Amino acid sequence: MLITRRATFSASHYYWNPDWSPEQNLAVFGKCANRAGHGHNYTLEVTVSGSVDPVTGFLVDLKWLKDLIEHEVLDVYDHRHLNLEVPEFAHTIPTTENISIAIWNRLVPAIASASTARLTTVRIYETPEIFAEFSGGQA
Amino acid sequence: MLITRRATFSASHYYWNPDWSPEQNLAVFGKCANRAGHGHNYTLEVTVSGSVDPVTGFLVDLKWLKDLIEHEVLDVYDHRHLNLEVPEFAHTIPTTENISIAIWNRLVPAIASASTARLTTVRIYETPEIFAEFSGGQA
Amino acid sequence: MLITRRATFSASHYYWNPDWSPEQNLAVFGKCANRAGHGHNYTLEVTVSGSVDPVTGFLVDLKWLKDLIEHEVLDVYDHRHLNLEVPEFAHTIPTTENISIAIWNRLVPAIASASTARLTTVRIYETPEIFAEFSGGQA
Amino acid sequence: MLITRRATFSASHYYWNPDWSPEQNLAVFGKCANRAGHGHNYTLEVTVSGSVDPVTGFLVDLKWLKDLIEHEVLDVYDHRHLNLEVPEFAHTIPTTENISIAIWNRLVPAIASASTARLTTVRIYETPEIFAEFSGGQA
Amino acid sequence: MLITRRATFSASHYYWNPDWSPEQNLAVFGKCANRAGHGHNYTLEVTVSGSVDPVTGFLVDLKWLKDLIEHEVLDVYDHRHLNLEVPEFAHTIPTTENISIAIWNRLVPAIASASTARLTTVRIYETPEIFAEFSGGQA
Amino acid sequence: MLITRRATFSASHYYWNPDWSPEQNLAVFGKCANRAGHGHNYTLEVTVSGSVDPVTGFLVDLKWLKDLIEHEVLDVYDHRHLNLEVPEFAHTIPTTENISIAIWNRLVPAIASASTARLTTVRIYETPEIFAEFSGGQA
Repeated sequence: MLITRRATFSASHYYWNPDWSPEQNLAVFGKCANRAGHGHNYTLEVTVSGSVDPVTGFLVDLKWLKDLIEHEVLDVYDHRHLNLEVPEFAHTIPTTENISIAIWNRLVPAIASASTARLTTVRIYETPEIFAEFSGGQA
Repeated sequence: MLITRRATFSASHYYWNPDWSPEQNLAVFGKCANRAGHGHNYTLEVTVSGSVDPVTGFLVDLKWLKDLIEHEVLDVYDHRHLNLEVPEFAHTIPTTENISIAIWNRLVPAIASASTARLTTVRIYETPEIFAEFSGGQA
Repeated sequence: MLITRRATFSASHYYWNPDWSPEQNLAVFGKCANRAGHGHNYTLEVTVSGSVDPVTGFLVDLKWLKDLIEHEVLDVYDHRHLNLEVPEFAHTIPTTENISIAIWNRLVPAIASASTARLTTVRIYETPEIFAEFSGGQA
Repeated sequence: MLITRRATFSASHYYWNPDWSPEQNLAVFGKCANRAGHGHNYTLEVTVSGSVDPVTGFLVDLKWLKDLIEHEVLDVYDHRHLNLEVPEFAHTIPTTENISIAIWNRLVPAIASASTARLTTVRIYETPEIFAEFSGGQA
Repeated sequence: MLITRRATFSASHYYWNPDWSPEQNLAVFGKCANRAGHGHNYTLEVTVSGSVDPVTGFLVDLKWLKDLIEHEVLDVYDHRHLNLEVPEFAHTIPTTENISIAIWNRLVPAIASASTARLTTVRIYETPEIFAEFSGGQA
Repeated sequence: MLITRRATFSASHYYWNPDWSPEQNLAVFGKCANRAGHGHNYTLEVTVSGSVDPVTGFLVDLKWLKDLIEHEVLDVYDHRHLNLEVPEFAHTIPTTENISIAIWNRLVPAIASASTARLTTVRIYETPEIFAEFSGGQA
């Protein structure tokens, strides 16, 4: 059994490898290399697995999961510039892939410490056309 | 190979454990504990697996699957109060998780008796922000 | 200039005219006449018109409009049975049309007392397939 | 007869009135006042009116309209920081309302100079929950 | 008061002016000029206006409107090749604009003969990115 | 780690088994057997798996994947009649299932020859209500 909660946040980012020349950054990252930044409405889907409690009918309390996503992710990412204001992206490019890993790393301990449910998948949509999905293990 | 058919139904429900006091129900279930009921437009996705018939190009006849979902699920759930009118929720709280299990239990024998395809997943959206997914086995 | 804010709520309702026999209710209202109730995820769009304040760039403060919709509508409608718990539907059938009028009547004085913006339209979706739109005047 | 073409772009912005103290900006604009910027996937709907050419069946050539939106708007706004890189927002706060006016002002002369169709409405979604609509005249 | 009902149909079409050379058709209509045809999932929104019947709470019976759209439009358009099988497009190019006019012409008498409601707008989406809207009068 | 890119195309098709009588085709395929053809806006989701390059933060360059989908699939399928113009459907019925296999077969070598990423899943929506998913192996 899996249950998923969706959330959204709006953030800025850019793609830039400081070991490269501006020309190389532009060649690889195109318009995403613009250092003034651009942004997205990200949609996040957090999926947890576990067994259904026969007393409540819940795998997890979705109000608890919503609050946890809010505290662990949205309070840090929403209305922020990911490169400049979110610590895990100080030296890591905030691509869709890396954002899914970073959110996974934030949620795993928070869920493990407070629930018998297990984080199964973090899916993040940068736009409706692009999404990454991380399920742990080697990235 | 998997093929999925989506359907929608509108129903009422509430969350209430009769072994608990009203205060405890309110504490755990919040506004979902309102006994007057509230409702949702549920979206159901039924996924079956199997092999493609080289004569028809079909894994299953989707018109048949649509009718089966209609008879087995929508005729019983649509425009109904799940707690009060649907037998499997007489003593089971109709959470998103439990609805996915109940629909699974309705569809498995109906599909097995009439097709070589195998039910793989039942996904049910309570709102666009919340969905449960059951693939059989222990719930 | 128009600006619109969307909100959602989940509620139960049924269609029933107490002056009619059960047979007549069933004939006119079909499965919506089920007195156990059924429900929907309603989507509400509130559109206001006015001029843009050159100091803020706002027609209205959307945070204020969000809070107003929450207090005036969602706190009363969300997770409620419209017929049984919302006063304006005690003797009025909560059809999509009548819900749009009732929300209009709730919002007009609240907006007029606190803003120079003018409520222009209330659009309410019962499902993605059905929506009513009220812009004041004779209903 | 109206015909509408939708387009999307991703951009950063912040809300800041330079005549105000930081405290006042924070009080009015909340988290949108963050000078590092945040961003959105904007959806733009451009509606033109006119009569249908009996020879082509077109009110306008939608390929032409798509290219025009691309040249006049997307090339300037997409993957840009609106406050820092788009001239019309150097001294105007890029609220949803002001973006709709700015796009209107870009499109009116471009359409008028090349078509008998008339720009009727610019609708811009900042998120699926918020959209502004400008139809000319006094803003 | 307006109420809208949405419906969908899938159809083929191509754009071709028989008075033109193939080269001219290709120059004006691009890949839409392919005579083998291509197709779309069209979404139709039919909006009617009128007053709310205080006895039913209905502007129109939406079940009736759904059936009417089905009989007048879907039975003729769905799973059809518009140019080859729908009479009004034998000599008229089935552009989005012309489809909205043709549906309007089908619905106006059907609604007028059976209801006090008035057809207000026919909106047709060819894709989520393109829609035409006809409200009567000169096209 | 998985990353998915969505694309859309519009095409015509019909379902017809030339070994059957017209009556049998009609009995099995219903209105899809109409030889004039009908069409859809297909939505394609291409999912690839692999590891994230620490230098770019990319599993694959999504611009490259977009171009590859365009060259390998859209250039051949978009605004085409699948039965009449796409070689793999000359003798294979273009059902949703078979389209997912055909796109898989087009993409596997193209991705393998140019990337260390592995094609994981091809999902194709014929309408929002129906989608097939192929992950390789025996169809």
